[in-house]
Amino acid sequence: MQIRFGYELAYRCTQPTPMILTLNVHYTRTSDLVRRDDLRTAPHVPLTMYRDGFGNWCTRLVAPPGQILISADAVIRDSGEPDPVVRDAPQHPVESLPEETLVYLLGSRYCDTDNLSAFAWSQFGQAPPGWQRVQTICNFVHNHIQFGYQYARPTKTASEAFNERQGVCRDYAHLAIAFCRCLNIPARYCTGYLGDIGIPHNPDPMDFAGWFEAYLGGRWYTFDPRNNKPRIGRILIARGRDAADVAISMTFGPNTLERFLVWTDEVIAA
Amino acid sequence: MQIRFGYELAYRCTQPTPMILTLNVHYTRTSDLVRRDDLRTAPHVPLTMYRDGFGNWCTRLVAPPGQILISADAVIRDSGEPDPVVRDAPQHPVESLPEETLVYLLGSRYCDTDNLSAFAWSQFGQAPPGWQRVQTICNFVHNHIQFGYQYARPTKTASEAFNERQGVCRDYAHLAIAFCRCLNIPARYCTGYLGDIGIPHNPDPMDFAGWFEAYLGGRWYTFDPRNNKPRIGRILIARGRDAADVAISMTFGPNTLERFLVWTDEVIAA
Amino acid sequence: MQIRFGYELAYRCTQPTPMILTLNVHYTRTSDLVRRDDLRTAPHVPLTMYRDGFGNWCTRLVAPPGQILISADAVIRDSGEPDPVVRDAPQHPVESLPEETLVYLLGSRYCDTDNLSAFAWSQFGQAPPGWQRVQTICNFVHNHIQFGYQYARPTKTASEAFNERQGVCRDYAHLAIAFCRCLNIPARYCTGYLGDIGIPHNPDPMDFAGWFEAYLGGRWYTFDPRNNKPRIGRILIARGRDAADVAISMTFGPNTLERFLVWTDEVIAA
Amino acid sequence: MQIRFGYELAYRCTQPTPMILTLNVHYTRTSDLVRRDDLRTAPHVPLTMYRDGFGNWCTRLVAPPGQILISADAVIRDSGEPDPVVRDAPQHPVESLPEETLVYLLGSRYCDTDNLSAFAWSQFGQAPPGWQRVQTICNFVHNHIQFGYQYARPTKTASEAFNERQGVCRDYAHLAIAFCRCLNIPARYCTGYLGDIGIPHNPDPMDFAGWFEAYLGGRWYTFDPRNNKPRIGRILIARGRDAADVAISMTFGPNTLERFLVWTDEVIAA
Repeated sequence: MQIRFGYELAYRCTQPTPMILTLNVHYTRTSDLVRRDDLRTAPHVPLTMYRDGFGNWCTRLVAPPGQILISADAVIRDSGEPDPVVRDAPQHPVESLPEETLVYLLGSRYCDTDNLSAFAWSQFGQAPPGWQRVQTICNFVHNHIQFGYQYARPTKTASEAFNERQGVCRDYAHLAIAFCRCLNIPARYCTGYLGDIGIPHNPDPMDFAGWFEAYLGGRWYTFDPRNNKPRIGRILIARGRDAADVAISMTFGPNTLERFLVWTDEVIAA
Repeated sequence: MQIRFGYELAYRCTQPTPMILTLNVHYTRTSDLVRRDDLRTAPHVPLTMYRDGFGNWCTRLVAPPGQILISADAVIRDSGEPDPVVRDAPQHPVESLPEETLVYLLGSRYCDTDNLSAFAWSQFGQAPPGWQRVQTICNFVHNHIQFGYQYARPTKTASEAFNERQGVCRDYAHLAIAFCRCLNIPARYCTGYLGDIGIPHNPDPMDFAGWFEAYLGGRWYTFDPRNNKPRIGRILIARGRDAADVAISMTFGPNTLERFLVWTDEVIAA
Repeated sequence: MQIRFGYELAYRCTQPTPMILTLNVHYTRTSDLVRRDDLRTAPHVPLTMYRDGFGNWCTRLVAPPGQILISADAVIRDSGEPDPVVRDAPQHPVESLPEETLVYLLGSRYCDTDNLSAFAWSQFGQAPPGWQRVQTICNFVHNHIQFGYQYARPTKTASEAFNERQGVCRDYAHLAIAFCRCLNIPARYCTGYLGDIGIPHNPDPMDFAGWFEAYLGGRWYTFDPRNNKPRIGRILIARGRDAADVAISMTFGPNTLERFLVWTDEVIAA
Repeated sequence: MQIRFGYELAYRCTQPTPMILTLNVHYTRTSDLVRRDDLRTAPHVPLTMYRDGFGNWCTRLVAPPGQILISADAVIRDSGEPDPVVRDAPQHPVESLPEETLVYLLGSRYCDTDNLSAFAWSQFGQAPPGWQRVQTICNFVHNHIQFGYQYARPTKTASEAFNERQGVCRDYAHLAIAFCRCLNIPARYCTGYLGDIGIPHNPDPMDFAGWFEAYLGGRWYTFDPRNNKPRIGRILIARGRDAADVAISMTFGPNTLERFLVWTDEVIAA
């Protein structure tokens, strides 16, 4: 299967404005690209790329005063397989977790574990450990939070989403991540594209999606408490402790977002 | 000058309890050790060390049921010099910040920059950039927050400290860090020992201290908004994005902290 | 200004032969593409792309027995500006170089700094540091080496070029890079297209060009000791430690290069 | 088994001299440390650590005029197992090598593959692919080169070692690496400690050791053409393309090495 994906973002700045963009597909997916996803800007500005501490490719630029259009339009191969389900994936005791997973047990900007720990243990402490415990958490979060774009708020933490019971995909992910960490299961945030391949068409305008990965049985598995069922065609962009680490764009100065288009469509041979 | 420092912590656990301890002096100070700061436990348990993503030394162990005593008692050489003051240290424009500093512009668990950005710009945006802007922030934080151990709360964020106007050293540091990041100055949290060398003796029981570093003119400088004056005899343990990254101890199971002693004293030759 | 550029390479292999090609324009120039530079092959074979450690796009394929034609024909916008000259760009002391530049101080396959260090210091150690020192190096290299395609040799190192005093553009670049590194100035190799825009037409068949970048005053600047004057219309393909990192093609098996055409021409509106 | 290891290096500089040291044990071994290997300096100087592009921990400092003593004295747990031998580890066809291994097929400063390719294919092209081919290369190199400290030369390449037939452990490693790469087997250089555990005591003063790893059957295996038999107690410090990437020390200014001691001894319980 091939998927065409991309975005068109337009920002208007009043002064030269540094930006950091995390918009390229994740390094683990570059070899699936059929058409490159290089970021284009109009007007042209110098770009510098670097990899952040998680390995994500980030782009630095300085937007000039006026409008800058940032876009990409790429094609990627995909297995067409839904997210794997491995019901017997076991949970690691803390003492046997690999060192590099330990940072994903800590609290982070939007995953305020310390505020949720008591509830997490009382609610999920009896669920069978491992895959089923993570799935129990996802089921809870999926039912607990009401989805609505109007509930999006850049400052919303997991505990706020828990209390308000409203949010968007990233809030679902943050809450589930926080619960997993409370229960000593490493969990990390993922951002990327997720189209509606294999499911009824969603008429809402597309956005980037947020989901998460939990560390079970020696590897990381995808979970998506917003949709809460295996999906086809995820295109990972970046991973981090939470959405604070993998913002699509960080702008260092006043600006207006004048256009925001994202697309992800299966390529149907003529 | 030589400083004797150490700690004695006693935990009581009801079951085997994994712990991660960040208690060794920072690798930048190992050269100064006159007597090693190796962590001892009673009863003896196997220890595993690793470096976290910031380079800090961490120790993993599994505490047995019952009490475990964790201690060190070391001696370190110190320059006896107060924290440097470099009033003309300039601020980097965002676009010229080295890549490794960019993560210290992001929000983090206790430094919720997005909640403080508007205030930060209105309050500090006119202060001369560079050292003076950071010092202006420290002066504000020093005066804004009332110190009191009774105000300590593990979940307190910078914006909560800002609104409640009460806290301990880590809250001062978190608030100043958040303001610096809002103003595009990389800032990172430090934890360590800080005695009362050169100042009137403080009768309160000692605790570990929190301060921060800001990136100005190509290097990191120490700032301490709690004390807000150059101090002698800081002994760095660890650095991170905020206190969530450098907790002295993380315990993965129910436990009681039965003893908590910290000391830092100048060694006076007989 | 618009520039049409591309290539046509034909290889004949006797068996299925893996290849790695570094032929796409650099990600920093994708925004400028008016017509894409996608690599085409005849016969058609599956292509896989990846980014190497420097961020360059590379393409993997397996050439079938017989001839394979590999080509692209693209159009790119260009500022029409010559390479910038910033005579007061300062040199960083080693201790203030950003971490990501340090690898460009080390020796590499074709830049054998250890063989050239003594000469470099005696010859260039008194030149004013910064831009002028790099320019002094370029002047020396430009005059020291006699250009000639017949002097090209894939194994030629900087010290060999220095001793033989003959070479092609990549040898000029390697020697200047090695001298810069000896003098603690980070320098990296660039490969790309360079036409004869703004200069007398060169009747030789075109080839890809090699030049280099030096890190001065917080950014990377283009230098070209072969031509040794600012040029218009460089189209960067890839950057690395030296030509070993950015070979246009690597073939893993016996083959014959049957055709090799490269073009770079200003598009003149009718 | 526990191994005590460390070093004592003394440099004399005439002016403030930046240094980069790659002396800490590799991040994959930190969790085996029983006593930390932090670098100590006398006099005390500020230290900064960073991880290079290969993940190795590096230390930056500026040595003052006069002598600087750099040392560590650590203890590490070791399995006591000899290097594994997996005779049926298969060779990957180039087209199925993971992307991150491809850089270890390229030529590098001391592994000048292009000068050795013809010989490599004629000599080793008929050996059974995979483990046996790498072992055949090691056997050849082991017998081809005569060991002698007097043959050490910092500029010696693999092809020079091949022609001169004399060298030290790093020359053995460089030559074997170059042959492996010629034959499309990814190979990378390793530096570390290697004592004489389990073999007759070697009266020569100890040095750091160089060996290499080859990528076979989906993982990296240790080979040591200098000793050419499985050994016990290797303590890895760093990995790179060749010795140019993992120099124990790089000094940016004139200096004299006044002391050089390295030790690696099994800890025998009293």
